[in-house]
Amino acid sequence: MTDAAELLIHTYTENGVTTLMLDHPERRNSLSMAMLNALGEELDRVARDDETRVVVLAARGNVFCAGHDLREIRERFDSHEFQQALFDRCSEVMQKIVNLPKPVIARVAGVATAAGCQLVASCDLAIAADTARFATPGVNIGLFCSTPMVALSRNVHRKQAMEMLLTGELISASRAEEIGLVNRVVDEQILDESVYRMARTIADKSGHTLRIGKEAFYRQLEMPLDEAYAYTAVVMAENMKAEDAQEGICAFLDKRKPEWKDR
Amino acid sequence: MTDAAELLIHTYTENGVTTLMLDHPERRNSLSMAMLNALGEELDRVARDDETRVVVLAARGNVFCAGHDLREIRERFDSHEFQQALFDRCSEVMQKIVNLPKPVIARVAGVATAAGCQLVASCDLAIAADTARFATPGVNIGLFCSTPMVALSRNVHRKQAMEMLLTGELISASRAEEIGLVNRVVDEQILDESVYRMARTIADKSGHTLRIGKEAFYRQLEMPLDEAYAYTAVVMAENMKAEDAQEGICAFLDKRKPEWKDR
Amino acid sequence: MTDAAELLIHTYTENGVTTLMLDHPERRNSLSMAMLNALGEELDRVARDDETRVVVLAARGNVFCAGHDLREIRERFDSHEFQQALFDRCSEVMQKIVNLPKPVIARVAGVATAAGCQLVASCDLAIAADTARFATPGVNIGLFCSTPMVALSRNVHRKQAMEMLLTGELISASRAEEIGLVNRVVDEQILDESVYRMARTIADKSGHTLRIGKEAFYRQLEMPLDEAYAYTAVVMAENMKAEDAQEGICAFLDKRKPEWKDR
Repeated sequence: MTDAAELLIHTYTENGVTTLMLDHPERRNSLSMAMLNALGEELDRVARDDETRVVVLAARGNVFCAGHDLREIRERFDSHEFQQALFDRCSEVMQKIVNLPKPVIARVAGVATAAGCQLVASCDLAIAADTARFATPGVNIGLFCSTPMVALSRNVHRKQAMEMLLTGELISASRAEEIGLVNRVVDEQILDESVYRMARTIADKSGHTLRIGKEAFYRQLEMPLDEAYAYTAVVMAENMKAEDAQEGICAFLDKRKPEWKDR
Repeated sequence: MTDAAELLIHTYTENGVTTLMLDHPERRNSLSMAMLNALGEELDRVARDDETRVVVLAARGNVFCAGHDLREIRERFDSHEFQQALFDRCSEVMQKIVNLPKPVIARVAGVATAAGCQLVASCDLAIAADTARFATPGVNIGLFCSTPMVALSRNVHRKQAMEMLLTGELISASRAEEIGLVNRVVDEQILDESVYRMARTIADKSGHTLRIGKEAFYRQLEMPLDEAYAYTAVVMAENMKAEDAQEGICAFLDKRKPEWKDR
Repeated sequence: MTDAAELLIHTYTENGVTTLMLDHPERRNSLSMAMLNALGEELDRVARDDETRVVVLAARGNVFCAGHDLREIRERFDSHEFQQALFDRCSEVMQKIVNLPKPVIARVAGVATAAGCQLVASCDLAIAADTARFATPGVNIGLFCSTPMVALSRNVHRKQAMEMLLTGELISASRAEEIGLVNRVVDEQILDESVYRMARTIADKSGHTLRIGKEAFYRQLEMPLDEAYAYTAVVMAENMKAEDAQEGICAFLDKRKPEWKDR
């Protein structure tokens, strides 16, 4: 981890679960170019890190993430090149989450807006405190949340996405759960307990299996039905060759706990 | 507006919000060829009209819209050409709503069935009275709701769409909200208040921004993830060049109300 | 029906509704190669059977279907060819349900897991007893539910699908309804009544119309909006040529019950 990244993201690993905590509350954890670089760097690192089996994306303070850093954007109004690079970099980092060969759970307390809401939508799973709130308010400042909507509109039905995008208004955590943006909402007191219980449940599985499954999930989603089946039938037959699959099946039939090779 | 259109659709604009009110209650506001032509004409007109920033699609009487005009269809049983032209025209008008560079909100009181339900599904947003009901009952008359299902199945999950299509039964407004067909359900007494409050909220945004955002929303939905991000990152960087974006960001940082150029 | 199929699936037809009942409770109705062959054979047969207008997929015992037969899989660990053939065959049978020219309703009591959950997701409609439960637990045995997720992820939002796939945990019937995996949940005492009432409602429609509609539904889902409209507008105009459409429209306008030619 570079020093720059370390200043912006606090990372720690416990029992196979690595927490990436956005750690710039004085700037509402906004996705400045520096923060995006730090997050991209950390995602690349945990992708390769053998100790990391599951990632939790968290944030310090009462704002999960406020989206882009508008001060930085204003300072560079003159540079179209910078603006394009910023949105390209942001899109790249969001896709790193989707393409990470390990599950990523968003732990959301506080407000997640614009690209901050996109971060939540880009994670595989999300658990929110009942006090969390979500919005894509770019429309209020003349800058439509066009990249955030890519992730949002792949999480929720289109009228619900459109309402957030066109009104720019905040929705509650419970509304976010109803429409599919988060998996569940819990009392803020038990947010950590809920997130890490889910993380440990998943970290207990075979890493090889999780990797295969997550990659195949997002790939098949973009295929027509017949291609999706042709593709995943090969994925499953290949999966069967893995030691972990044979061990898992034997353990299940023998009513014992499996011993994963790829823990 | 031609005289023919004027007889079928009552149009009025207030504070940037243009209401298109289907105004043929004696024929249950059905989508005859004349009504489709009138609606298409009005949509073309409001697309160009500088006064119109948001469109509300409403209807007079206790039927929002009963779908195609079956009497007209029966009179032309002999003309396959007419039938094809009718469904082509209907599909074209529905896509005019999607492609309109301004947000469209359905204001639904009463029953919306078949192509009437499709109208609701085709709008960007929809608010329904608690007394509203929805169905795609073509299957009951031997004419499957095949064009309505294009819009319906892009609003709700497939089993919920299939239930409506295969049973032909009415669903309540609250069920429509649960499955994602409408954004919210309110007491009929406050339907207008709710619809126009949302319309005014949106009409207060920059028109340039709304135009960019709506177009990009529907385009990116049909792309794979990487293309969607490549496309929308360009959209956002272009959006940043607009006066309204720079004004909006400055106003936000300066804690003042933005002055849109493209109101 | 071959003898082999008859041992594994109990089939009976009443008033146009054919029930295919998985009938191997001692093996938790698991989808062994023999069961998949039997189910494929039965689906082919009911596709052609004039008596069958609607299909109910049911199961005997307190397990709807436990997915693949892990004992059989273990016995053939050495044969990659067998494993590939198994997943290919399973994918083929699931697509037979989707492509069947007649509606298929899942009647779910008990537990539906892995490819058993996929069976439910692959049906056009599903009604579950309140005691039913669902999971895609392959991740627990090192074999990710990669083919089941094709159907699951086309029924529910992606975070909800991912939670089932990554945790492997059971969800309740009411949660399955909330996320869109089943149409409705009823007390187990009235499960049959609910399923067969819906089946009879649908069986009363014109078979020709159901065939047209179901096929077009799944085809248009995979098209961009403009193609979907171009395609379905042709489907509707062709549908209008059918005797059943003309009869249905006349009957409706004349306020009488239609007499379907293709009952």
